[in-house]
Amino acid sequence: MTDRYPTRTSRAPELLAREDPVCWGEPGGGPLGEEDLAVYAATGFHCAERLLTDDEVAQCNAELTRLAGDPRLLHDDRLVREGGTGEVRSVFEVHRLSEPVARVLAAPKVVGLACQILGSEVYVHQSRINYKPGFGGGPFYWHSDFETWHAEDGLAAPRALSVCLALAPNHPHNGALMIMPGSHLTFVTCRGSTPPGHFRRSLSSHDPEIGTPDRASLTTLADRHGIRMITGPAGSATVFDSNCMHGSNGNITPFPRANLFVVFNSVDNAPGKPFAAPGRRPSFIAARDITPFGR
Amino acid sequence: MTDRYPTRTSRAPELLAREDPVCWGEPGGGPLGEEDLAVYAATGFHCAERLLTDDEVAQCNAELTRLAGDPRLLHDDRLVREGGTGEVRSVFEVHRLSEPVARVLAAPKVVGLACQILGSEVYVHQSRINYKPGFGGGPFYWHSDFETWHAEDGLAAPRALSVCLALAPNHPHNGALMIMPGSHLTFVTCRGSTPPGHFRRSLSSHDPEIGTPDRASLTTLADRHGIRMITGPAGSATVFDSNCMHGSNGNITPFPRANLFVVFNSVDNAPGKPFAAPGRRPSFIAARDITPFGR
Repeated sequence: MTDRYPTRTSRAPELLAREDPVCWGEPGGGPLGEEDLAVYAATGFHCAERLLTDDEVAQCNAELTRLAGDPRLLHDDRLVREGGTGEVRSVFEVHRLSEPVARVLAAPKVVGLACQILGSEVYVHQSRINYKPGFGGGPFYWHSDFETWHAEDGLAAPRALSVCLALAPNHPHNGALMIMPGSHLTFVTCRGSTPPGHFRRSLSSHDPEIGTPDRASLTTLADRHGIRMITGPAGSATVFDSNCMHGSNGNITPFPRANLFVVFNSVDNAPGKPFAAPGRRPSFIAARDITPFGR
Repeated sequence: MTDRYPTRTSRAPELLAREDPVCWGEPGGGPLGEEDLAVYAATGFHCAERLLTDDEVAQCNAELTRLAGDPRLLHDDRLVREGGTGEVRSVFEVHRLSEPVARVLAAPKVVGLACQILGSEVYVHQSRINYKPGFGGGPFYWHSDFETWHAEDGLAAPRALSVCLALAPNHPHNGALMIMPGSHLTFVTCRGSTPPGHFRRSLSSHDPEIGTPDRASLTTLADRHGIRMITGPAGSATVFDSNCMHGSNGNITPFPRANLFVVFNSVDNAPGKPFAAPGRRPSFIAARDITPFGR
């Protein structure tokens, strides 16, 4: 198979035009209307305020608390803890660890968005709850998810998306998600090569060197597209294309953030051999089971 | 003199009610009308979009470039440089180093705001240009300026204010100033004592331990008052009371920030013996010459 999105090479970074569609589906095929789909195709993302009910938000937050305190998960790799305090920062594969979370993600208003945009059945490539404390929670540097999923997980095409469900209010001041609208149409190649076990570094919120776009490319994209900060009350959803350039600033406010993330990939874009990594990432980070999810 | 704002002691932090007025002047005494003054008294700050002309902004930016490159200032303490790269991050006492900057600050639309709010003539307690680069510029943790000026510079009362003039656009996403509106009415005492030469640490943007409010007090204030992020185009001004709780997040965007800060203190609130420090700060950080400025 030709690699249409070469990355992690010794060559200087390049801005490549995306070769694949953004929307693969039709207005009749799910929750989004014609205009919503057109905006998604142009910007690479869609925001829905209060997609989850207050009850669903409360259930997910309760599950985070329950899982963080479950003694059976004390040494489970899927719970990523803060170095110093041992506090849980991320719970991976949360749709398998929690029945209530799985129910939320399997609702037509969630997985149906993915099926419609990707024009096929989808599987959960990754799911996680992220908890970012206040008072100095770190930034998450700019990146394209697809760059990683292509290089390390063997996804040939950006026929995948993330749904980010806010479990706490996202304010402009507490490190909300930032997206460069329209950046999903450009693939920024990254210099370098992936060392074995690199995925461990990508679990922390700090700027990894591998798979990180260079400053000149980021400046070009930011000048061209600007930066949109995604805010909203708990329960709000942001659906964004796998190749959106995105990141988040740190958070010195007292207000923590918590988000439920799910990555849906088209079953027609099944993971293969990594395009630029010595081995595959563990399945709790990058699923290999492509059983259609939800319906 | 009784210390009505005791801080940097061994006692647990306390929230003390402010004993001094916020507005000392009258609607007829300057650029602000009755409503503006009432909002300032209640929130502790006032925003004015495009207070400076584009020409004035360009002049100030040119002065920053000129001063940063002036070989005579290479070893001048007033130019604070980045540890690694040697790039200039702050220029102190900029109203003495630069005639064009002094002219901007002496305009009735700038110094007149201070005279009106403080109800007296004022002097420049401190002036500086701050340059914050993009791609990871650090945060500035929550603090009240008055806590420092009281403890280290001997200002008895919070009869002082800052004017922050934006020399580049302040977006929600590039680490804009955050204020807790109404927090200026509460004085948060800090635990600890000031070591000699402490001012050197306060020149960096990192969280100093001394003079830093505790997390419980910050949470109380944030819950009570919320957080307002101050954005606006270049040339915008924010005038804020010396006891406002404020800070700024880091900045991973490519967009740098540059601000011209000036601290005006009432000539009737002249600096005395520090209330909680072994010695005074250098005069380029805390002036002792209280000659009325501007008019």
